[in-house]
Amino acid sequence: MIEIERKFLIKEPNVLLAKLINGNQIRQGYLFTENAKSCRVRVKGAKGFLTLKFGTDLLSRTEFEYEIPFEEACELLSQCDKVLQKTRYEIPVGHHVCEIDVFSGALDGLILAEIELSDAAETIELPSWVGEEVTHDPRYLNVNLINGL
Amino acid sequence: MIEIERKFLIKEPNVLLAKLINGNQIRQGYLFTENAKSCRVRVKGAKGFLTLKFGTDLLSRTEFEYEIPFEEACELLSQCDKVLQKTRYEIPVGHHVCEIDVFSGALDGLILAEIELSDAAETIELPSWVGEEVTHDPRYLNVNLINGL
Repeated sequence: MIEIERKFLIKEPNVLLAKLINGNQIRQGYLFTENAKSCRVRVKGAKGFLTLKFGTDLLSRTEFEYEIPFEEACELLSQCDKVLQKTRYEIPVGHHVCEIDVFSGALDGLILAEIELSDAAETIELPSWVGEEVTHDPRYLNVNLINGL
Repeated sequence: MIEIERKFLIKEPNVLLAKLINGNQIRQGYLFTENAKSCRVRVKGAKGFLTLKFGTDLLSRTEFEYEIPFEEACELLSQCDKVLQKTRYEIPVGHHVCEIDVFSGALDGLILAEIELSDAAETIELPSWVGEEVTHDPRYLNVNLINGL
């Protein structure tokens, strides 16, 4: 499927953090990365996922995601040089669900908000804690964040 | 799982080909290849598979295989630069199942036999049509055959 996603920094982290409940711990690594594609393994709570992403347009990429056995996901994670850790929360923003990623480990202090859209031109009303948009900034791709670890 | 597999050329192709029935057409390509690992997408009959292989020992590699929707496998195949085509037959050899790959397209004329073992030291009684063993010859890895296309 095609995934259309806008990504933002947070300008009032304390306001946002107070709203967050029931996060899912995520550990993820990249088995393969090339310029325009990646193969990611993720453990989220007690589930495992293998995800292929294609495309250089950071707003809209083609994604194929498959749930895989938890134990195999852990084994695949152990094949990755670097593993990124974050806790993901979901909160409503207007008619959308906003995914908040609170990073830990070496990226402690970084928080990113992602809003998935059904159409790239769709407008969203942003809450006050939303900061600078970084959708088109490749530094905030998880695959690049992890390479900085 | 760890896959232990011995691979052979065929010295009497006509004797072998006469025995083959009910083959499955396979189209496969590689989404990612690095020295010691690969990510393959395969369409086999009406099914799709995504397969990760790790390891440099050509006799014994670690493999993770996931069935994926047929349509998505076709879409992923279209992301591959090169696609290999072969028909796979299974015939019994002693207590084992032998997979016979009859290649078509640019590799027309090539036939390979693969026998999966539960233990690397296991002995197998080979039929007369089995030729030179190429288990340790990297030229006969599908990922390398495809690069020669």
